Amino acid sequence: MEELTLHEYAASGNCYKVRLTAALLGLPLERREYDILKGETRTPRFLAEVNANGRIPVLQVGRRFIPESNAACFFLADGSRLVPADRFDRADMLRWMFFEQYNHEPNVATLRFCIAFVGEERLTDAQRAQIPARRAAGDAALKLMDEHLTGRDWFVGQAMSLADIALYAYTHVAEEGGFDLSFYPGVGRWLGRVAAEPGYVAMDA
Amino acid sequence: MEELTLHEYAASGNCYKVRLTAALLGLPLERREYDILKGETRTPRFLAEVNANGRIPVLQVGRRFIPESNAACFFLADGSRLVPADRFDRADMLRWMFFEQYNHEPNVATLRFCIAFVGEERLTDAQRAQIPARRAAGDAALKLMDEHLTGRDWFVGQAMSLADIALYAYTHVAEEGGFDLSFYPGVGRWLGRVAAEPGYVAMDA
Repeated sequence: MEELTLHEYAASGNCYKVRLTAALLGLPLERREYDILKGETRTPRFLAEVNANGRIPVLQVGRRFIPESNAACFFLADGSRLVPADRFDRADMLRWMFFEQYNHEPNVATLRFCIAFVGEERLTDAQRAQIPARRAAGDAALKLMDEHLTGRDWFVGQAMSLADIALYAYTHVAEEGGFDLSFYPGVGRWLGRVAAEPGYVAMDA
Repeated sequence: MEELTLHEYAASGNCYKVRLTAALLGLPLERREYDILKGETRTPRFLAEVNANGRIPVLQVGRRFIPESNAACFFLADGSRLVPADRFDRADMLRWMFFEQYNHEPNVATLRFCIAFVGEERLTDAQRAQIPARRAAGDAALKLMDEHLTGRDWFVGQAMSLADIALYAYTHVAEEGGFDLSFYPGVGRWLGRVAAEPGYVAMDA
């Protein structure tokens, strides 16, 4: 495989997904850090050379770039044990990855960012006004995950897949955004299974 | 392939993606309509049997279900000409599909729903307050698409893929949400290419 470089902000769960996927598969990954709080992913050079959408993570493969965390994970894991060989299960894995980006990340990750990184006292009025709706939607996503995990070890089929990695990244730090994971015991047990996988790396590693 | 049934609300662009994918591939698809404005996807039976997330589309494959429009499209097209055989291009296709669900649909589709389906006069204060931010973010997504299409016929590689289908669904009706597509001439030409594909079906077909 061509040389892999992750353009990232290490405290971002979206960036951690890519590092965790690479670690579980034993793929070497160069890392290049940007401070999103200082706008380092919105510079003219970043927009022109790395991602016109001004976001991280971006996985660089040789001289080409893949934005979007879940797409970067798919590139790394395509053909590996982390992508189910069964056609239905492969689509079902993507179902949970799209759920993560639509129902989970905009609520669970955004509240963590607002509370733990920006700080509640520095939020704009518009950001503060959205907290109750994001709280409710984030809890709904966690509840749906908890119910799905009843009688299951993993989100899809009988083994870990990228669906688990995508959902793990922000769930395991959801309490930094004020979510109470004790309401979701099935999620808690599943978090433990992910962390026990051979090759697992922590978010701050 | 097992019998395919689409649980849908026909005017939804997310549902149209699945119909367009099936049509381009010549796959027969039963259709079952739900009125989302009457809450028909939030009934106890729908939540228990079709999708615990209370949303359409859901693709039924035999007795199993795939929620999330882009995952359903992937199931239908897996192994076909609509999913690139090249590993990088396959991930790049998913990159645009995640971009669609994160940056495009929550803005372009949501404003269409608020303006053309709910009606501006019936919006809640919270919905009305979000219009300017959604307008700006939707225009940013359309601009990014327009710039990417400079010198390209399709979003990924040299042929139509699911990336084009996912982005086409709400872009071609964006003016119903108050977006002015004349600002994005590259997008306009690309919309024409999609509509000229053999097997294409219109949203209201």
